[in-house]
Amino acid sequence: MTEPDPRTADLGFARVDLDRAERTGDPEVVYGAGKTPEQVTAILGTLAGRHPGRAVLATRLSTEALAACAELGATVDAEARCAVLGELPAPRGLVIVVAAGTSDGPVAREAALTAQVHGPGVEVITDVGVAGLHRLLAVRDDLERADCLIVVAGMEGALPSVVGGLSGVPLVAVPTSVGYGASLGGVAALLAMLNSCAPGVTVVNIDNGYGAGVFAARVARRAHA
Amino acid sequence: MTEPDPRTADLGFARVDLDRAERTGDPEVVYGAGKTPEQVTAILGTLAGRHPGRAVLATRLSTEALAACAELGATVDAEARCAVLGELPAPRGLVIVVAAGTSDGPVAREAALTAQVHGPGVEVITDVGVAGLHRLLAVRDDLERADCLIVVAGMEGALPSVVGGLSGVPLVAVPTSVGYGASLGGVAALLAMLNSCAPGVTVVNIDNGYGAGVFAARVARRAHA
Amino acid sequence: MTEPDPRTADLGFARVDLDRAERTGDPEVVYGAGKTPEQVTAILGTLAGRHPGRAVLATRLSTEALAACAELGATVDAEARCAVLGELPAPRGLVIVVAAGTSDGPVAREAALTAQVHGPGVEVITDVGVAGLHRLLAVRDDLERADCLIVVAGMEGALPSVVGGLSGVPLVAVPTSVGYGASLGGVAALLAMLNSCAPGVTVVNIDNGYGAGVFAARVARRAHA
Amino acid sequence: MTEPDPRTADLGFARVDLDRAERTGDPEVVYGAGKTPEQVTAILGTLAGRHPGRAVLATRLSTEALAACAELGATVDAEARCAVLGELPAPRGLVIVVAAGTSDGPVAREAALTAQVHGPGVEVITDVGVAGLHRLLAVRDDLERADCLIVVAGMEGALPSVVGGLSGVPLVAVPTSVGYGASLGGVAALLAMLNSCAPGVTVVNIDNGYGAGVFAARVARRAHA
Amino acid sequence: MTEPDPRTADLGFARVDLDRAERTGDPEVVYGAGKTPEQVTAILGTLAGRHPGRAVLATRLSTEALAACAELGATVDAEARCAVLGELPAPRGLVIVVAAGTSDGPVAREAALTAQVHGPGVEVITDVGVAGLHRLLAVRDDLERADCLIVVAGMEGALPSVVGGLSGVPLVAVPTSVGYGASLGGVAALLAMLNSCAPGVTVVNIDNGYGAGVFAARVARRAHA
Amino acid sequence: MTEPDPRTADLGFARVDLDRAERTGDPEVVYGAGKTPEQVTAILGTLAGRHPGRAVLATRLSTEALAACAELGATVDAEARCAVLGELPAPRGLVIVVAAGTSDGPVAREAALTAQVHGPGVEVITDVGVAGLHRLLAVRDDLERADCLIVVAGMEGALPSVVGGLSGVPLVAVPTSVGYGASLGGVAALLAMLNSCAPGVTVVNIDNGYGAGVFAARVARRAHA
Amino acid sequence: MTEPDPRTADLGFARVDLDRAERTGDPEVVYGAGKTPEQVTAILGTLAGRHPGRAVLATRLSTEALAACAELGATVDAEARCAVLGELPAPRGLVIVVAAGTSDGPVAREAALTAQVHGPGVEVITDVGVAGLHRLLAVRDDLERADCLIVVAGMEGALPSVVGGLSGVPLVAVPTSVGYGASLGGVAALLAMLNSCAPGVTVVNIDNGYGAGVFAARVARRAHA
Amino acid sequence: MTEPDPRTADLGFARVDLDRAERTGDPEVVYGAGKTPEQVTAILGTLAGRHPGRAVLATRLSTEALAACAELGATVDAEARCAVLGELPAPRGLVIVVAAGTSDGPVAREAALTAQVHGPGVEVITDVGVAGLHRLLAVRDDLERADCLIVVAGMEGALPSVVGGLSGVPLVAVPTSVGYGASLGGVAALLAMLNSCAPGVTVVNIDNGYGAGVFAARVARRAHA
Repeated sequence: MTEPDPRTADLGFARVDLDRAERTGDPEVVYGAGKTPEQVTAILGTLAGRHPGRAVLATRLSTEALAACAELGATVDAEARCAVLGELPAPRGLVIVVAAGTSDGPVAREAALTAQVHGPGVEVITDVGVAGLHRLLAVRDDLERADCLIVVAGMEGALPSVVGGLSGVPLVAVPTSVGYGASLGGVAALLAMLNSCAPGVTVVNIDNGYGAGVFAARVARRAHA
Repeated sequence: MTEPDPRTADLGFARVDLDRAERTGDPEVVYGAGKTPEQVTAILGTLAGRHPGRAVLATRLSTEALAACAELGATVDAEARCAVLGELPAPRGLVIVVAAGTSDGPVAREAALTAQVHGPGVEVITDVGVAGLHRLLAVRDDLERADCLIVVAGMEGALPSVVGGLSGVPLVAVPTSVGYGASLGGVAALLAMLNSCAPGVTVVNIDNGYGAGVFAARVARRAHA
Repeated sequence: MTEPDPRTADLGFARVDLDRAERTGDPEVVYGAGKTPEQVTAILGTLAGRHPGRAVLATRLSTEALAACAELGATVDAEARCAVLGELPAPRGLVIVVAAGTSDGPVAREAALTAQVHGPGVEVITDVGVAGLHRLLAVRDDLERADCLIVVAGMEGALPSVVGGLSGVPLVAVPTSVGYGASLGGVAALLAMLNSCAPGVTVVNIDNGYGAGVFAARVARRAHA
Repeated sequence: MTEPDPRTADLGFARVDLDRAERTGDPEVVYGAGKTPEQVTAILGTLAGRHPGRAVLATRLSTEALAACAELGATVDAEARCAVLGELPAPRGLVIVVAAGTSDGPVAREAALTAQVHGPGVEVITDVGVAGLHRLLAVRDDLERADCLIVVAGMEGALPSVVGGLSGVPLVAVPTSVGYGASLGGVAALLAMLNSCAPGVTVVNIDNGYGAGVFAARVARRAHA
Repeated sequence: MTEPDPRTADLGFARVDLDRAERTGDPEVVYGAGKTPEQVTAILGTLAGRHPGRAVLATRLSTEALAACAELGATVDAEARCAVLGELPAPRGLVIVVAAGTSDGPVAREAALTAQVHGPGVEVITDVGVAGLHRLLAVRDDLERADCLIVVAGMEGALPSVVGGLSGVPLVAVPTSVGYGASLGGVAALLAMLNSCAPGVTVVNIDNGYGAGVFAARVARRAHA
Repeated sequence: MTEPDPRTADLGFARVDLDRAERTGDPEVVYGAGKTPEQVTAILGTLAGRHPGRAVLATRLSTEALAACAELGATVDAEARCAVLGELPAPRGLVIVVAAGTSDGPVAREAALTAQVHGPGVEVITDVGVAGLHRLLAVRDDLERADCLIVVAGMEGALPSVVGGLSGVPLVAVPTSVGYGASLGGVAALLAMLNSCAPGVTVVNIDNGYGAGVFAARVARRAHA
Repeated sequence: MTEPDPRTADLGFARVDLDRAERTGDPEVVYGAGKTPEQVTAILGTLAGRHPGRAVLATRLSTEALAACAELGATVDAEARCAVLGELPAPRGLVIVVAAGTSDGPVAREAALTAQVHGPGVEVITDVGVAGLHRLLAVRDDLERADCLIVVAGMEGALPSVVGGLSGVPLVAVPTSVGYGASLGGVAALLAMLNSCAPGVTVVNIDNGYGAGVFAARVARRAHA
Repeated sequence: MTEPDPRTADLGFARVDLDRAERTGDPEVVYGAGKTPEQVTAILGTLAGRHPGRAVLATRLSTEALAACAELGATVDAEARCAVLGELPAPRGLVIVVAAGTSDGPVAREAALTAQVHGPGVEVITDVGVAGLHRLLAVRDDLERADCLIVVAGMEGALPSVVGGLSGVPLVAVPTSVGYGASLGGVAALLAMLNSCAPGVTVVNIDNGYGAGVFAARVARRAHA
């Protein structure tokens, strides 16, 4: 109906945005939820072909899509349900991902891998929930090395408030759907984080490790521009 | 319509339960919300007359009702919006009330006064919110002296999880309506407390210092039976 | 990244808190939801090894994890979906669990077993819902023997209010997800219990028999310290 | 725009339904919320003029509208915020209104007065909340005389379940907005009543004493047709 | 723990209330949700044995439980997911069930069968939703023959308001979970019915055909006492 | 910070969009909520100055702002809380506004006035709620003359479903906040309209007469292009 | 129970409305959710037999029902989960469907096919979400050719606001359930659309492509009457 | 009860955290909601006395508290409801605040002033809502100069998605309570922002300009460390 736009690749089932790296400096990403393995690999291949020097990320992949990505030559992280096609960039800046419990692992991994693809180096600290505070206090000084913190927690979502009270490093909180009953699928943790009494805590959607990773990477890159 | 019941006093506008002390061991209480000063003092007087040796408590009083209770000879706590008619009992056991911020003060005071009327001695520690953890850690050892803890917090409601991870003393959490926006009138704090990752945290209604005080007093009395 | 902490055992996939018994006096527990049978038994084994004289509890186990625990030598309660490794302690104090209907059974059993592992003896009374009040009135006097009551109910969650009006024993209410439609997965029962007109009712998360058991045990132990 | 309909009176600001008595057998009613005293008395007068032999009811009246109705010659009930113009009918059948607490009084009164205007005799029993069960058990046998019960309660809304378990008389439950915090303006009581484990409990809107009164009167009239 | 109560049968897994017929005049019922076929038939058999002259109802049965009931000699209604053991009573009074759409059928059938077991005769009128009003107007006069109406609807739940405006017969509305998206599992229909502008509409839980049937039967029986 | 844009007028406190008429063909509008009378008249004057041949509308005005607009020479509708500055256009097409009750009047008036300012002629039919269906059926044939219908209702919001089943004229439903308790400030009516079983019903925000008026006018203008 | 009505076909399990085309000008439609393939084809056949010259639509079909419709000779659209029996009408007017992402495809297709069956020609533009605005701006001028726009979006549902600010063409917004976590099954997108700051945006239920298609077709037909 | 802690100043009614600057590098802040003018100025004075070289901020002030702060020598911003005592720091880095409408002004001002007190220079761009996209596109290139963007919007909250698609600058979104009806006090905008399809958007609480300002300042400071 309209003139072809060089910033867009029309795959029939998708109008792929090829321009995002230009506009935002970020690598290209495929959001895999609800897409067939064939759709994922088609988009991944198209994006990688247009941006040969950069890693391309695919998230929220089914087991089948993970396998298809591996066949395409991508590196696959089964816990994070993500795949990366192409070389990771040389680390610039540092993001530290802090997770409350083992069940928060997949979200923490998605955040970590996303951040890495977007630029900085990443370290992950898990199982430091507020019910055993000594575990967090033991790693407290480490946190100051980061350019941006990602704090992942389900249930009552208290960890970002405690970390945010201990440190002035920019902090993105990720609520997870870990919990049951009145956790309401992560809404309890989300609300807690939005109401944090520690100033400067920002929040992303429930289980949105990807969004936190993008944001933290942008902050870390700027700190080392 | 029915035979008069000696366990009930019919004041025309209310059928007062005179039997509660018998059934539960607790003193009598007037819930003042929505009652006129006249209704409050009439019930208070009736209860005090039937139980001369015990203090009687009135909660959620309007400024007018507080004044009317003072005229009746009651001791009035304006911050807690409560009045007590009669002697406080000799303290048996200890309840410690821990509050996150100054805005949580009225609820903390209602809890403290209620507990006192129901038996134990009470200490109150305020302004120890999780965003400045050193304030809580400074009083940590004190908490072990308590027979029951009442932990009061609004906003993200994280304090009970942190306290509950530090101590094995029975802990009742009271969410408050302190906050705005996504605090949803205290629902965020309530949900956080219900989802606490610290085991053994129990919860009462938003701003329900009274209920927490009754419960904590029962636990403390039993520990010194 | 940090020095090893003797209060923590790093299993690779989990940073196990070995210090909780020290801090709180409670036995160690594995929350089994979302964990593989291998993870459950690894943590259970580690904890049991460090605390040879005490029973260790695992909750929310899948059928596979229950079987794996049984092979490890644990005692398994299929209705409660729990396993216990090691000797139960000699009973100190008494907790009575009161459940409204047969469908509330699994939550009542989780509460009962948890309490037992944490110290007191436990009795369970089921099927005494408020729609047939004579069943509850028949056991009324029994309730007074308890140091703490756990009252379990789904649907309209009225039972704790009625029990709380009959007795002054400390009472923890557990809403269950039993019901349909406007029960909203247990939220209706939860709200009812939080709004109980019987003073001194405290509440835990929907289906959280474990949390109620921990709390009740702490109260019962203190009454017999 | 259309032919005048004899079943409708056009007052300019309202298209009054004159036909309801014909269709349903019920008296005419003015819902006063959001209407000026002038609008209320204009509609009340029109309806009374068309149905000279029957009482006409106005509900949810402001203090000003109550005064205006009194001047018109109506009987006014300030607690119920209602006015009745014309003779009450000779009682046919019996409705009993049971209310949990004194704060539920206005709703109970609205229900009682509405039922009376619609036909049956009415008795009101107040302050029989479930936290003091002996008060309800004392009046239990009375309930059986009713053709329909209206049970009014706020907070946790447990009373209809208990009454519904004691009696097979048709029962309409009215949740009230009495409570605070997690009562959510009466939603907690509403949900509890909808999830009642006592079979045959039906429910109307929060604070809707009027609707309960209409319904109960219809049932009572039929029982004495 | 207590003396055996002749009003209760202890089956080990359940404390069956044998007294309900005595208290309420209603037949005994087994709520089948979450019960095994063995539990259903055990309770059904016990109840039938104690009340040989009356039909006993089981609702919310799984396919397996329906089959087990059929083997026990019960009459099974697969659409309603119910079974009846014993003779239906001779009809006393009339209940008419009106349903908006074909998808509301199972709930309408559960209501109809329940009412029949509880006394009255029952007629069912389906597929008269408000979007094709002529279908409802065509059956309007029939409705007046009923002693009580049960009106079943999902989606926007408008049918009870329209029926309630046409007739003064007592009306119980049953919201169903039919719909998608903003129907929120039946909550939209439930709210609509609670806010009906037609006076005298009462409401039961989403999909609760059983509760509506019990209530309507009680009303109908009284009209023919 | 940027070049002045001829499509925008910078008033210091507002960056007024002068280009909307160009882009959309609609007249300019001032949304008055939260604006001072001075701000309202400043924007109104600016817009009227730039578009001398067209009427300019201001909505959601306080009593003070209405007075200020009247002084400016605008025509004021106190019920609708709106003001119009400049000549209304010659009617093109017809919009009919149908309202359920007198309390819905302000929203219906806002919709009617907005539509008029945007082009078509408007007729308003009020007080035809579904509880007295004969009133709606009496005007049924009139509806067919419209190019677009606006149906306004609060409480259970059933009117759009019934109208939508009677006519194929495009229909915009406006839920109002008329009601109490479980109407949840208009959410019940909103949900009902979104779930309408009559096909082709579209919905705007609660009390948003303005939005419905704009939309209906666009549809009516096109039908007479 | 009543006389057969020529406007209704009684299939035993359904009371099919044959009169809708007469009342509304729209073709007949079968809502397939929850219906068996046999029920779908029976109703589809009946409707097609009564209206031989017109296409009949079936929506929300299971894979089995799609196959059964194909066997009946219907044209099947697997992505839209719809089937059409009979010739599509000659296009009258133009509807353009604009969709934010590939995941919104099924809803966009249902809307497009529904509109076509109801009269106008249809064009579909996909993958023009607001995060890559150049894609939308590239097709902006195309939109003006439409008589009505349907804008489909999940997640934050921002697309209708942006499109509605660019064009004065009547616009129906369809929120989809695409998203996770705080999208709450499409509620976030629904709320966003209802609160659009672009005037004249109307909204249908989540995933309700059908309703949007019916409405848009009615608008487009009128513009070419 | 405990030793005085030099990091804390005990004012009787508050336990002021003097250590935050040390831990986080941020200036001290007084959250004024619910505090009397006397409490605000007492804390403000204490903090200013301990940190003489730094500006101290007070937010959410009542008109009375604003006046009291002015008397104390603070600079007052009435729109933002904030006061600053002491010199603003020399700007380091740049934060740009983008606001959708004039009604969002107070929140945008609070964010701007907070950021300034915390370090960076600040520019504010208002009235660039998505319904008039040309206004935003006109300032697009300006945005790239920022180290961090704060995007403020009420109603449907779409602006952060559009801005986030145009730029890779770190972006914090602030939902406001501007709107009515289904905006649910800002919840609609909050949900939209959490579900943004533009990657890397983070969110703070409704109307929380303060939190966004703190966060953005931290990011901007790091970019110029």
